[in-house]
Amino acid sequence: MSTDTAPSTGADDTALGEPAAAPRGPVTSASYSITVRLTADGDPASIGRIATAVGSAGGAVTAIDVVDSRSDGLTVDVTCSAADAAHSEEMVEALRNVPGVTVRKVSDRTFLLHLGGKLEVASKVPLKTRDDLSMAYTPGVARVCLALADHPEDVRRLTIKGNTVAVVTDGSAVLGLGDIGPGAALPVMEGKAALFKRFADIDAWPICLDTQDVDEIVRTVELIAPGFGGINLEDIAAPRCFEIEARLREKLDIPVFHDDQHGTAIVALAALKNALRVVDKRLPDVKIVVAGGGAAGTAIVHLLLKAGAGQVLVWDREGILSPDDERLTGAKLELARRTNPDAVRGELPDALEGADVFIGVSAGNVLAVEDLARMNERAVVFPMANPTPEVDPVRARQHAAIVASGRSDLPNQINNVLAFPGVFRGLLDARATEISDGMLLAAADALAAVVRDDQLNANYIIPSVFDHEVTTAVAAAVADRARHEPGATAKVTGIESSPA
Amino acid sequence: MSTDTAPSTGADDTALGEPAAAPRGPVTSASYSITVRLTADGDPASIGRIATAVGSAGGAVTAIDVVDSRSDGLTVDVTCSAADAAHSEEMVEALRNVPGVTVRKVSDRTFLLHLGGKLEVASKVPLKTRDDLSMAYTPGVARVCLALADHPEDVRRLTIKGNTVAVVTDGSAVLGLGDIGPGAALPVMEGKAALFKRFADIDAWPICLDTQDVDEIVRTVELIAPGFGGINLEDIAAPRCFEIEARLREKLDIPVFHDDQHGTAIVALAALKNALRVVDKRLPDVKIVVAGGGAAGTAIVHLLLKAGAGQVLVWDREGILSPDDERLTGAKLELARRTNPDAVRGELPDALEGADVFIGVSAGNVLAVEDLARMNERAVVFPMANPTPEVDPVRARQHAAIVASGRSDLPNQINNVLAFPGVFRGLLDARATEISDGMLLAAADALAAVVRDDQLNANYIIPSVFDHEVTTAVAAAVADRARHEPGATAKVTGIESSPA
Repeated sequence: MSTDTAPSTGADDTALGEPAAAPRGPVTSASYSITVRLTADGDPASIGRIATAVGSAGGAVTAIDVVDSRSDGLTVDVTCSAADAAHSEEMVEALRNVPGVTVRKVSDRTFLLHLGGKLEVASKVPLKTRDDLSMAYTPGVARVCLALADHPEDVRRLTIKGNTVAVVTDGSAVLGLGDIGPGAALPVMEGKAALFKRFADIDAWPICLDTQDVDEIVRTVELIAPGFGGINLEDIAAPRCFEIEARLREKLDIPVFHDDQHGTAIVALAALKNALRVVDKRLPDVKIVVAGGGAAGTAIVHLLLKAGAGQVLVWDREGILSPDDERLTGAKLELARRTNPDAVRGELPDALEGADVFIGVSAGNVLAVEDLARMNERAVVFPMANPTPEVDPVRARQHAAIVASGRSDLPNQINNVLAFPGVFRGLLDARATEISDGMLLAAADALAAVVRDDQLNANYIIPSVFDHEVTTAVAAAVADRARHEPGATAKVTGIESSPA
Repeated sequence: MSTDTAPSTGADDTALGEPAAAPRGPVTSASYSITVRLTADGDPASIGRIATAVGSAGGAVTAIDVVDSRSDGLTVDVTCSAADAAHSEEMVEALRNVPGVTVRKVSDRTFLLHLGGKLEVASKVPLKTRDDLSMAYTPGVARVCLALADHPEDVRRLTIKGNTVAVVTDGSAVLGLGDIGPGAALPVMEGKAALFKRFADIDAWPICLDTQDVDEIVRTVELIAPGFGGINLEDIAAPRCFEIEARLREKLDIPVFHDDQHGTAIVALAALKNALRVVDKRLPDVKIVVAGGGAAGTAIVHLLLKAGAGQVLVWDREGILSPDDERLTGAKLELARRTNPDAVRGELPDALEGADVFIGVSAGNVLAVEDLARMNERAVVFPMANPTPEVDPVRARQHAAIVASGRSDLPNQINNVLAFPGVFRGLLDARATEISDGMLLAAADALAAVVRDDQLNANYIIPSVFDHEVTTAVAAAVADRARHEPGATAKVTGIESSPA
């Protein structure tokens, strides 16, 4: 999950270190597990040696399945977790060296899981008999179509539009992998759609676009919009994503959300609110440094300011973003103007001088642990870059009262899945025609409030992704806010039944 | 199902009679069923009078559900089938007149079935634990994405692309309803997607386009194509549909199929082949008259000629299409040139003089039963216009040895669901990059062959839509043909596992 939260230091995502490799060592992951098919001779000890060999290579056997048993030996599928791809190869090599064992085939479990794709379409209505067909398809469907032609507002009630989100990408900034194109991006979009279903019962479908032209992306999304109740933009590089989002919001009567921006911003703001409760500081009073002026950083700054943050500085590869920096243009210059009226210049350590909060959505290891000592007492540090955080989250605790990151093996994981399912659930429930800053703030407040006062502490500022309350709470807050904003929701009639 | 097969007499579909209304009379349909909630007083006879009242109005009670029972009476949901909307109202009126009964609410079952839409998205992979997430989403998914960036040919294997079809419409020629727009067309596209799943386990998703501009439709489909393994064009008006299909076939590396054309043509050809076996005539020898020069008619003529038909005349609103008719342009002129070298002119009865086969995909009641007497002995008559056939199929039997139509209450129903699921199943199974006339002909042959020699007779020239052999047989034939056509299928590697 973790690479979802911190996409960029700007438009040049491709340079950001190795993709999605977990730190090597004792931490093995299911995402690197392999299944090795091997044959073992008749010696009963051979099987015993398998687990030993995997263990000695630093791996762990998670399953042994006997595929075939004959008098002269066994065919066995051995599944083991590894830390990364090189580690997998070491385990295979160790198995090859076991006396009496012959390795036949090595399969990557993550790849096997992707065979045939991760999504399917299901009919919600029975299609067993001719009567079923006559209602779900012709001739019965014709009456529904005619009614919708007369009452377009009921399309949200009588079709999939009411519960459907398009997950749209151009494949230009996929996870931390950069510009891999629409086909290679598809597994991420499928995963996203699966999460929509799993966490919010939303029917999302991937739309992977074979263009990176802003005009074409905007027009294509506009043209396919009739069948969807919301648009989730995904992994589109900055600064292109800003214009696409702004123009689509202008044109469409369904909400447009860019998860890399708004999802990240909601979760970061919720975590920060709770962190400040723990350290007993107030948002208007603290000095916040945001590392990364790309899609996520820009959205975080925007939401922080809307939430009442008093002082924010943004650092990116150009240094502290300053309105008098002549290299800056467009979105970054605008960001500098909104955050740095005094035109402070300098590098990241300079920015941290006297800061209370650090939020990183930039790149791995851009910050030395020692630099955190420049921050104020009871510092809050969120190094969220993935796969490698801006500063080691474990060592950051030497100087920070609270640390949160994208790492799933540490407390306080900042994860977008805490936001986007609930946000869209609320938008669809309210039949929202747009999404506002007020709804994003309501989502952040609701997410923060899932952590009760008696639960809140430095190691628990944000709930688990598996906390059932999260989606419900976020959805209710967003829907409530949408219903109270004039013109933000669609009216429907109810043509399917009439009082007699 | 029946309005699917016969869309047009050309570009002006909207004028074709009343939409999808079944013939009034004793034939009631589930597609017109209603559920009436009513309260009955304590008199036990009141309930008994309900069924009587519905029956006396010519309807049939299919279910009575008691919702609430109190000492002073019952609340009951009465479900009844009707012949059409006016008939439904007569039944409600009859119920209102039952002593002791008060009608509270009338619900239309077809509309109720459509509430919330007919499709949902399901995850094919478990997402219960963190390990599940780490394989289906980040960080594990990143390795699959990177592998696909290096091996684009494997997108068909490791993503939904391998089993996914976009059902694309512009809403311009929906069933017989005409230009009702993309939103109102959605229930049909959902139904189509549900049929894809039901009959061929294909994951299809509706794409309803908010434009009727050919360039924009072509470009939009081109841009969304990376996520789909095939394109099913649906209910797009002629002649626009011809250019869209031709240009997309040129541009895309996935098959493009227009069901209103090719699906109809496959089923009509299959039925005709079997009909000619029954009447002992040969395709090269017979004179065929096709009524309707729109999308379906054009495709039927094309496939007939490819299959070896010797003589075909096309009639449309202009009369018999003739190459010397100066009013004809574009697709219709081309059709005239391909079919009528002798420049025969005249009306439909003239065309039928000495004809062996009539295939109608035009409009209701364009032909008098008596005109069929002009045809040769052992005539084959397929009046397939919907909802009203070109000539009454029952009375047509006075002059024809074999009659087939779109009517589901008569033998020999011509229904596209006999073709499109199997065609796409075969295309996807073979990883086809295109669709050829050879594949369409193979589909028609396979469909015809599902009816065995010992089953074949004048009332059984085409199998039932519920015949399990149909999709399998069509799919196998299409896949086999695709694999034998040079360059028609995509090669894949197999990056998910390696021999050790």
